[in-house]
Amino acid sequence: MAKIARLTGALALGGLMATAVLAESHIDPAVQRAVDARQAHMTLYSFNLGTLGGMAQDKIPYDAAMAGTAASNLAALGSVDQAGYWIEGTDAGTIEDTRAKAEIWTDMADFEEKAMALTNASAALAEVAGTDLDSLKAAFGDVGKACGACHETYRVSDD
Amino acid sequence: MAKIARLTGALALGGLMATAVLAESHIDPAVQRAVDARQAHMTLYSFNLGTLGGMAQDKIPYDAAMAGTAASNLAALGSVDQAGYWIEGTDAGTIEDTRAKAEIWTDMADFEEKAMALTNASAALAEVAGTDLDSLKAAFGDVGKACGACHETYRVSDD
Repeated sequence: MAKIARLTGALALGGLMATAVLAESHIDPAVQRAVDARQAHMTLYSFNLGTLGGMAQDKIPYDAAMAGTAASNLAALGSVDQAGYWIEGTDAGTIEDTRAKAEIWTDMADFEEKAMALTNASAALAEVAGTDLDSLKAAFGDVGKACGACHETYRVSDD
Repeated sequence: MAKIARLTGALALGGLMATAVLAESHIDPAVQRAVDARQAHMTLYSFNLGTLGGMAQDKIPYDAAMAGTAASNLAALGSVDQAGYWIEGTDAGTIEDTRAKAEIWTDMADFEEKAMALTNASAALAEVAGTDLDSLKAAFGDVGKACGACHETYRVSDD
């Protein structure tokens, strides 16, 4: 949102709209589908993490059933193979509307390791999230760390 | 895309942009997250169905590993609990940028049954998609039927 606000300040709305239309028309449909898919995957991580993180941080009341469902969802999403999303030439230096750094492709083994850390942490969280709040809190830390480790290294910063 | 083209013809770009900004600012953030999540879920169905449907329709060559992965992904997505997405008051008559019909909430048992049909068909497809093309084709039919049955009844038509 900060990026959008800066752009709006720098460009007339009409120009911004024209740029968006132009950019969309020039991107390969297969590339667009891959980028849309990985962003959709992140949206679903975020949706379920919102519930779990809210409980872990005492911002919303602990509900065992809701916690168990959100953690199971996260684990199921973690089991989805992402290879189809991360196609070459879809980094932020090459295409618009992505924050994926080029290092994803130069350091793919490490990227995959960091992705696997989230999958494993999510599976561990799913085992205990429905037990009690303390168990959720204990297991949620590794999920948060896995998210952060990958974003810090492979996602263009917001600021 | 047809809808967008019609809108562009009827409205000046500036007006369209202003409408979009206004609509976004008026929606409850929790509602927006739910709508974003269900649309993201559909994007991921579509991404994997593109691979499987392309093979089923002989538009792309059959690849056992790719087929198996896409079908496993579809089955994993089918196992994700969607209850958090379909919150009351998020139909196309109430909010913008959704094609969800109000009938989803008045006929929820049938909606859930139709969603379960896709989950079951996806699980069955995942069992055989990596075996050979004929098995994929045989199992893909039920997946396509499940998609269509739900969209015909519960999604606002494109035309």
